[in-house]
Amino acid sequence: MKSTMAWFKANAGRDVNPELASERESPSFNVETLTNVLDGSADETRLRRSVVLAVITDPAFSRENLYFKTRQERYEGAIRNSFHLRKKMTEYGWTTDGPEISYVYRSLSGELALNVHGVFLKSVMALGTDEQIAKWAVLANNYNIIGTYAQTELGHGTYLRGLETTATFDNKTQEFIINTPQITATKWWPGDMGKSCTHAVVLAQLIIKDKNYGMHPFIVQVRSLKDHSALPGITVGDIGPKMSFENVDNGFLMMRNIRIPKENMLSRYSEVLSDGTYVKRGSDKINYFTMIAVRVSILGNEVLASLMKACVIAVRYSAVRRQSELKPGDKESKIIDYQTQQQKLFPLLATCYAIHFMVKYVNKVYNDVSKMIKAENFDSLPELHALASSVKAYATEICANGVEVCRKACGGHGYSLFSGLPTLYTKVVAACTYEGENTVLHLQTARFLIKCFAGAQSGLQLPPITMYLSLPPTGHCPASNHLDFVNPDVYVEAYQHRAFRLIAAAAHKLQSLVQSGSEQYLAWNNTSVELVTASIAHTHYMTVKIFVDALNSVSTEPEIQKALKSLCDLYALHGIFTNAGDFLQDGYLSGKQLDMVTTAYLNLLPVIRKDAVLLVDAFDYTDAELLSAIGSYDGNVYHNLLECVQKNPDNKKVNPMFESHLKPYFQIAEAKL
Amino acid sequence: MKSTMAWFKANAGRDVNPELASERESPSFNVETLTNVLDGSADETRLRRSVVLAVITDPAFSRENLYFKTRQERYEGAIRNSFHLRKKMTEYGWTTDGPEISYVYRSLSGELALNVHGVFLKSVMALGTDEQIAKWAVLANNYNIIGTYAQTELGHGTYLRGLETTATFDNKTQEFIINTPQITATKWWPGDMGKSCTHAVVLAQLIIKDKNYGMHPFIVQVRSLKDHSALPGITVGDIGPKMSFENVDNGFLMMRNIRIPKENMLSRYSEVLSDGTYVKRGSDKINYFTMIAVRVSILGNEVLASLMKACVIAVRYSAVRRQSELKPGDKESKIIDYQTQQQKLFPLLATCYAIHFMVKYVNKVYNDVSKMIKAENFDSLPELHALASSVKAYATEICANGVEVCRKACGGHGYSLFSGLPTLYTKVVAACTYEGENTVLHLQTARFLIKCFAGAQSGLQLPPITMYLSLPPTGHCPASNHLDFVNPDVYVEAYQHRAFRLIAAAAHKLQSLVQSGSEQYLAWNNTSVELVTASIAHTHYMTVKIFVDALNSVSTEPEIQKALKSLCDLYALHGIFTNAGDFLQDGYLSGKQLDMVTTAYLNLLPVIRKDAVLLVDAFDYTDAELLSAIGSYDGNVYHNLLECVQKNPDNKKVNPMFESHLKPYFQIAEAKL
Repeated sequence: MKSTMAWFKANAGRDVNPELASERESPSFNVETLTNVLDGSADETRLRRSVVLAVITDPAFSRENLYFKTRQERYEGAIRNSFHLRKKMTEYGWTTDGPEISYVYRSLSGELALNVHGVFLKSVMALGTDEQIAKWAVLANNYNIIGTYAQTELGHGTYLRGLETTATFDNKTQEFIINTPQITATKWWPGDMGKSCTHAVVLAQLIIKDKNYGMHPFIVQVRSLKDHSALPGITVGDIGPKMSFENVDNGFLMMRNIRIPKENMLSRYSEVLSDGTYVKRGSDKINYFTMIAVRVSILGNEVLASLMKACVIAVRYSAVRRQSELKPGDKESKIIDYQTQQQKLFPLLATCYAIHFMVKYVNKVYNDVSKMIKAENFDSLPELHALASSVKAYATEICANGVEVCRKACGGHGYSLFSGLPTLYTKVVAACTYEGENTVLHLQTARFLIKCFAGAQSGLQLPPITMYLSLPPTGHCPASNHLDFVNPDVYVEAYQHRAFRLIAAAAHKLQSLVQSGSEQYLAWNNTSVELVTASIAHTHYMTVKIFVDALNSVSTEPEIQKALKSLCDLYALHGIFTNAGDFLQDGYLSGKQLDMVTTAYLNLLPVIRKDAVLLVDAFDYTDAELLSAIGSYDGNVYHNLLECVQKNPDNKKVNPMFESHLKPYFQIAEAKL
Repeated sequence: MKSTMAWFKANAGRDVNPELASERESPSFNVETLTNVLDGSADETRLRRSVVLAVITDPAFSRENLYFKTRQERYEGAIRNSFHLRKKMTEYGWTTDGPEISYVYRSLSGELALNVHGVFLKSVMALGTDEQIAKWAVLANNYNIIGTYAQTELGHGTYLRGLETTATFDNKTQEFIINTPQITATKWWPGDMGKSCTHAVVLAQLIIKDKNYGMHPFIVQVRSLKDHSALPGITVGDIGPKMSFENVDNGFLMMRNIRIPKENMLSRYSEVLSDGTYVKRGSDKINYFTMIAVRVSILGNEVLASLMKACVIAVRYSAVRRQSELKPGDKESKIIDYQTQQQKLFPLLATCYAIHFMVKYVNKVYNDVSKMIKAENFDSLPELHALASSVKAYATEICANGVEVCRKACGGHGYSLFSGLPTLYTKVVAACTYEGENTVLHLQTARFLIKCFAGAQSGLQLPPITMYLSLPPTGHCPASNHLDFVNPDVYVEAYQHRAFRLIAAAAHKLQSLVQSGSEQYLAWNNTSVELVTASIAHTHYMTVKIFVDALNSVSTEPEIQKALKSLCDLYALHGIFTNAGDFLQDGYLSGKQLDMVTTAYLNLLPVIRKDAVLLVDAFDYTDAELLSAIGSYDGNVYHNLLECVQKNPDNKKVNPMFESHLKPYFQIAEAKL
């Protein structure tokens, strides 16, 4: 069967490595159909491909030689890409809120600049009055100013109330005086601030007549529009090299008595009148909603995409790479045929599919709540917040760790930047920290779960995602042989039981600590290890359940259903296998049943093995998106690596150390040899 | 109490941050004594400090601004360091096999070049005849030639028999013809090959009259001594950017009909006579022993050191950083006071001590076996090999993952290179792959364990490290309350039981697969997930046991004993807590007992909390070694970070993107604002 994926063969004319071609010879399902399932429809696949093709075939966007570039070159390239994209979007009729934009981002793997400039613009739109929007949004939209969003400080991250920057109202001049009162208040991390921005939305404590009204947003100009130098009283610059994100100029900002007009406070939700009266209007819950929006948006684009790419690379490489004899005297075996390699990669492959359906679900909930909020109904916001928080924490942790497992599974070549894997890891792992540190997020969801659990005890109606806390706890797993464990009812119940039990255990510990005289805050802190575990168990349960729900709804083709079913089984059983203690502790599973789980789990590995390459092909990443010498569609791993080293600029230069250090020593040998 | 560590205060005259000073006010033990315990004696501490001081106070070795440097600058700096070190060693009377050398390496954090040149030299010494040593070793020793050791190939790593490079004996000319028969045979990865070396020990298949005699070592010149250009028939260069090791010029090498004289085959253990007769003499097991030596040597210097440094940085930072209110209305809390932060860091702190004693043990066994081998007794080699393999795999995995946990626990600042943490991670994680991929190594130890288990069944005497496989299996854990679990006898038995059970289970599965008709190699492959688990459980048990054994032997001071006991308890209980399934599955622990373990484990966190900063101070790393803005001894985290950004060369340059891209847009805003 001719592959349907030939459309993106980057190295046209180069044959597919027979090692990989043979993997595609007898698919158990139609790969194109599975791709459509992942995209949502065949139309969506077509749309995506048209955008991706338009981007990757545009030489101005070429990411060739990316791995040789310095930080400064990456930054400059990203700026060029961003300006070029502006033109291209007009040309193609793509808009910033259109369906194409996420595919553009995908095609460029985020190699863009001025992303926080977009956050600046959104902040103005969300928090500014109509007049302010009229003034600032147009300028920002046209790049006549470059903005950034300056919230976190050198000494302050997650805890916004702790921010120290001040904005003091001066009645006489009708200005705010912005100050960085001490070094810990230095704004730190904002993207586009290090080298690009002219303006910033600065979050600062509003002070009127010595009274602190809390955090408010102010527009502050930081660099001259004329020559781009820092304005008087401003110290601004780049915060230096990071683990990744070389293209982004994260910056710092110190402000000394910077005076800005009263009109520069973004005043949709609160205003300072000329006499210094503070006026609050309406709810600013919408701001809170924006934070959730960012968390939701990174899940698919940034987090899941990284694990998917890593799986594509590692699975293809494992089907090409041969290492050691499996059967003595035979040819060396493909490493994908080793059980230990399957054990590393296939659960992650299944995880891609599991997280994919989870992300779809979160997006759906987000859109539903979004509509309610537009109608000023904020009732479902806590539920959405709890969902987005723990899913962000769960998915980033699992995807970042997963990318690194894929990388290590590629041995030495996985350590070369040319494999694409180190860069995937060093970038995606940042998502465990930004937009809410994962442990903090799990504790926020845990607070919601504990509340729901208490509500269930008092007979309150719970939101759908925690409805199971109202059901009577289940007793023991009914499975009597390993085949029972590939029954989704069996494993969904096991996950539900585990989540219920761990939430209940945390709730009981909290309660008993308080009853024995502990202060509430201490009880909370001393239960926080268990609370995090409870939030993870809840999210894990949801992920399994949503995958099971998807099995029958996303496709009517039995071959596709069967493939997805195996992945779902694998995801669920691997989770029990690796978290066995949680299922064994109260006897829900017996030791013998855990043996059955292990058998069922290990039996699935050869099932996935057969279609492993096709299951990653279905993610439909082009070589230009993967940027991996060892993961390209054609599987010409070794040719690609040799091509890369030939492009290495270092290999075209003379080593200056020869003249300066080595030559005098070598002359002695020359005489002797 | 005045700290005894003031000797290495890097920023003389700068006060210690009160947040950190207060942590050192009332130590439960004498930090200096604990440092001596870790070093082995007070004399050893003195020696180490004298070497470290000599290195870090030498401006030629300064690692300042390391995080801003390009790959080429790092390489050039490393070459300069290596040549400077040569001089310094003569000056100070340090020798390459003296006690100082590992402290030199420690002080420079490996920022050296020509390390594989040392392997070249060792290979000549070990595998060469006396004449060959006389010729080549002197040249290499004096840097008159730079050598490398070329074993792995583009298509071949762990499995040495699969190497494809050939050395064909030409009877007529009395030469070997070295060839890279296809691209997968390109030598790939050797350090010092990319830009430096002139010669290489090339491992190649020896072919005489069409018969393959297997892998043998040959000295091949690759670059001209006169102008450093590649010799005719040679293609050699750098393999490009990696996840870390910017200072090392890992290279590739292709050879086309390179003729070398017969004398260039290293012939201590096998020789080709002029008529083409192949002569083997003696055992080359010594070569095998060299491989083990490398594994043992990286454990302390490279692997454990990284986790120790990461713990120093993360613990100090956590005692300075404040984030959110623990008690509502209070000052923001130190993040080290959050249970979830303690749960991340303290088990790793305990792991440092556990691995430290394990490394000491492995070194002792290594030295003992080394003596036996000098007396031509190779009996203990398999045991040493099994020990070094699984400990290398276990320690690299746990240390690399641990460094990353420390990094993430430092939030955003942990993502900045200035924290020192990203570099520690990207470097140490390579050790999971080099010198034997971890999964392969665990399977080698598993093979030894299965053999021992079978031996025990037939009543054979087992080597000490697997003696427990001869004992009757234990039944159930006798603990009846959480205090019982801080009894080392209780947890050592639990670990022993788990290791025994998992080894037995793997052995039984293997046996039953074979009995039910599976071929041996398939049975092995289908049991390999369980075999790896068994090797890990065995190594984990040994680590706990060796820590317990050390408790009473390394110090007679009760305060030190108490501190180490808490760390040992924490290490052991955390391991049960996180691998609960293994202990629950066969009912060795009951669910209630696991609750006791959890209680005992969580109760230890505040105990460690009190002395956490002192426990990392005891590792005695200078600021120059840590190279961390957030982990320095003085705890002036925020000042240090600001100092770093001020040194950022990017901040002293004009942004070229302003003129080329931004200015025209800004002019429009200038008119309007």
